[in-house]
Amino acid sequence: MTTRATSDLLTLFAAAEGGWVSGEAISRSLGVSRTAVWKQVEALRTLGYLVEAAPRKGYRLIARPDLITPEEVRTGLATRRLGQVIEYRPAVGSTNDLAKELARQGAPEGLLVLADQQTAGKGRMGRSWATPPGAAIAMSVVLRPDLPPYLAPRITLAAAVAVAEAVRDATGLAAGIKWPNDVQIGGRKLCGILTEMEAEMDRVAFVVVGIGVNVGLRREQMDPAFRDSATSLALEGASGTRRAALVQAILLRLEQAYDDLLAGRFPHVLDRWRALSVTLGRPVRVLGVDGQVVVEGVAEQVDEEGALLVRDDGGRVHRVFSGEVSLRPA
Amino acid sequence: MTTRATSDLLTLFAAAEGGWVSGEAISRSLGVSRTAVWKQVEALRTLGYLVEAAPRKGYRLIARPDLITPEEVRTGLATRRLGQVIEYRPAVGSTNDLAKELARQGAPEGLLVLADQQTAGKGRMGRSWATPPGAAIAMSVVLRPDLPPYLAPRITLAAAVAVAEAVRDATGLAAGIKWPNDVQIGGRKLCGILTEMEAEMDRVAFVVVGIGVNVGLRREQMDPAFRDSATSLALEGASGTRRAALVQAILLRLEQAYDDLLAGRFPHVLDRWRALSVTLGRPVRVLGVDGQVVVEGVAEQVDEEGALLVRDDGGRVHRVFSGEVSLRPA
Repeated sequence: MTTRATSDLLTLFAAAEGGWVSGEAISRSLGVSRTAVWKQVEALRTLGYLVEAAPRKGYRLIARPDLITPEEVRTGLATRRLGQVIEYRPAVGSTNDLAKELARQGAPEGLLVLADQQTAGKGRMGRSWATPPGAAIAMSVVLRPDLPPYLAPRITLAAAVAVAEAVRDATGLAAGIKWPNDVQIGGRKLCGILTEMEAEMDRVAFVVVGIGVNVGLRREQMDPAFRDSATSLALEGASGTRRAALVQAILLRLEQAYDDLLAGRFPHVLDRWRALSVTLGRPVRVLGVDGQVVVEGVAEQVDEEGALLVRDDGGRVHRVFSGEVSLRPA
Repeated sequence: MTTRATSDLLTLFAAAEGGWVSGEAISRSLGVSRTAVWKQVEALRTLGYLVEAAPRKGYRLIARPDLITPEEVRTGLATRRLGQVIEYRPAVGSTNDLAKELARQGAPEGLLVLADQQTAGKGRMGRSWATPPGAAIAMSVVLRPDLPPYLAPRITLAAAVAVAEAVRDATGLAAGIKWPNDVQIGGRKLCGILTEMEAEMDRVAFVVVGIGVNVGLRREQMDPAFRDSATSLALEGASGTRRAALVQAILLRLEQAYDDLLAGRFPHVLDRWRALSVTLGRPVRVLGVDGQVVVEGVAEQVDEEGALLVRDDGGRVHRVFSGEVSLRPA
């Protein structure tokens, strides 16, 4: 069974909104025999879809599993460019590494790499990022912006805005952004974004935006070291969130923010970043990769190159390009 | 024959400065039999070295071919880090592409990729770069600086300084720099530098500095489109320049400039860039990748992020990060 036929069948079921679709109608729409229709329904069942069949009525979809397969993500995807080509793996080392490899081989802008599980997921600053199967989103998008490298951090900020807004759209939860691009709920980390690029000194070859979201993770599935500082949508009360729907919402918001950025409307993206920020106006401490304190002060602003402006107690403003921010006890 | 043994033998010949070295002395130094010494001399002859042998005197080196093999480049190399590991290919698509591949696999800082010929050499802005066999240098160096990407263009400026100074050291010719990193003699391009990087948004994973120098190229070996605008050391009168010696000089100057940059002495590198510049103070026109004029005016300065500051006729200063500069007719 081709994934295209699966997508088409799922689209028919989606259009019927839980109602019956006759075998004849399916046969006509897909251009296959009635026997082939039956085989495709069987294939769907194997994937975990609950499909009822009845004589003279046809078929109806009772329940869909929470998959992030290309079929699920394509069905109803509203983007124009992002996610039109999808590379899915049940398990992969790192979606970013696979996306970079495909980008080097010439993958088009908008290529989406999805995995149900990452066995060697990566976070910022050389850290690892856990993606247990069935409970999270691991996605990477290939972008080919016509930007000099020093402006590429704008994409990081745009991605954080996209994820925070998509989480708000899909769940109603009050997601916020910790500089530069952690998405948090109630001070706990819900999502990490790792943006990587290959570039000449004056132009970007490609950027890979990697997004990991904790969707259904229970506390005991988390690394003990992060249990107090991490959260998931399920832990915050949005336990029914379908992963494919959230992937679609993220792609749509990311495409909007990316289009704004390319069209010279980055100030608009930055305004939304500022509105969603949980960092600005707060006393912060910035630590480097080595764990040393880089600067302490008040996070006053984020500038057009993505740097955090921190005013220290002596009144001097520091431009911070890298590091881990924590809120400083007042 | 191991390349290490070849290097050792060449080092002995170099120390003798054209004089005789006894077979016994070689045998002792290399820790091999007299028969093995004879075999190694034969191997050298196969590579193009002219070695005289005489009873009771031993061997002496009469002439060395102009190779850029690891043996030639290692013998007498004065650097501490750059070029300690060398990957040589008689022919390769692009030394930068090979260096990036090796860097992704974990190659150490300082890895040097050398090729006698490039079949798909690359220049800035997506252009091609010709490296015919025997007549040019194609070299790429892997660096792993602890820098945020927006400061990586400093490496490009440092590389231009290194090459211009190395050419001056090795030939006495008055090499100058056209922003950002073309090395020229008398207004004609002698060397192109293509710096590429892989990075997260806030830290560089690695940088590959690719350097192509026209050494022995005759005018008829050049692309007709560039014959008026390009030159070679031979065409400028330095026809005896040994490629390996120039590679050594470039590596030494590059290491010095890179050390300055990492140690917070970038202003010193920038001062040397300015002194070697043929762009500053001149009326210029900057063209983008698409051939459109980005700005016209007077090139006033280069700043700490590598941008060219151009003052247009209305007095406004433009920061140029990318593009091709040409001198504007006054």
